[in-house]
Amino acid sequence: MKGGSIEIGEVSKNASPGRGVAKGLSIMDFVLRILAAAATLGSALAMGTNDETLPFATQFIRFSAEFDDLPSFVFFVLANSVVCGYLVLSLVLSVFHIVRSSAVKSRIFLIALDTLRVNAVKVMLGLVIAAASAATSIVYIAHGGNVGANWFAICQQYNDFCQRSSGSLIGSYIAAALLIILIILSVVAVSRN
Amino acid sequence: MKGGSIEIGEVSKNASPGRGVAKGLSIMDFVLRILAAAATLGSALAMGTNDETLPFATQFIRFSAEFDDLPSFVFFVLANSVVCGYLVLSLVLSVFHIVRSSAVKSRIFLIALDTLRVNAVKVMLGLVIAAASAATSIVYIAHGGNVGANWFAICQQYNDFCQRSSGSLIGSYIAAALLIILIILSVVAVSRN
Repeated sequence: MKGGSIEIGEVSKNASPGRGVAKGLSIMDFVLRILAAAATLGSALAMGTNDETLPFATQFIRFSAEFDDLPSFVFFVLANSVVCGYLVLSLVLSVFHIVRSSAVKSRIFLIALDTLRVNAVKVMLGLVIAAASAATSIVYIAHGGNVGANWFAICQQYNDFCQRSSGSLIGSYIAAALLIILIILSVVAVSRN
Repeated sequence: MKGGSIEIGEVSKNASPGRGVAKGLSIMDFVLRILAAAATLGSALAMGTNDETLPFATQFIRFSAEFDDLPSFVFFVLANSVVCGYLVLSLVLSVFHIVRSSAVKSRIFLIALDTLRVNAVKVMLGLVIAAASAATSIVYIAHGGNVGANWFAICQQYNDFCQRSSGSLIGSYIAAALLIILIILSVVAVSRN
């Protein structure tokens, strides 16, 4: 299969429609990576700067909520930062991808590189989903509380804190959706080779 | 690459060492799937039958904790059940894999099937990790409580409930580790073709 495609690739090197589609896929890949990086950056920043101190206090206690009180939120910030960092670094390779059509040296090397990139994105998707689901279960309790466990909904008091947490979840889920599209695109791009 | 391997496959059909390794990989795959299915089944059952009623009550309230009070635990049970179901169903294909060496008809079809199986396991891994991390963040709060949010550690009261929840997490993490080994094995098996 792959052996056959080397010849096909060599033959179609001068056929412009195929190269146009490949370039289009590369540019979409590039744009999706920027959007996903922005979404994870937004999530990490929104959650990482999330703290609220209530405007009243007793003699001994100040009521304040900070994201690093909750390990799930810390994991959320770390995971989104890692994914954002990876996506920004991978943009370099994406640029190389877009301009490569004129400079194909070793097709096997490029296929190996693409496969590596797809798998890296899959790992990043796993990380984002794990972080988002851990944070979601906390945000859910913060909103609704839990009767059995006697955990109160803290969103009535810590209103800003809750809204910011919920908002940053949305960014993370958008990033997950973008990464899924990115994986599908990569599969299409690899199977075209 | 793949084109070349078809000939190699044809040539080595009568060479027993290569086929022995392939058969070994298939059997390991089979055993790992059974173990992972058992781990997820154990997790799902341990969590799904998890409820505790405290031996005292007020006139209006009976103190009881059930897994379906917490949506994260419900997600955990569902995800582990789905993964267990998939693994059990996939055992049929694994048996086919072990006996296939004598009945190779279409190698391309088998490669496509293997690729599909690897990707299915990756999706299952994502599901298990998402469910485990959601449940972990709840179990963590149940054990330690959270001072900022005024959520109490409920494990002092609901001792059995907590121990069962924590135990079922372990099963899920073991399943995740087994699935990762399964993916690595599959990659090795596919790259040998």
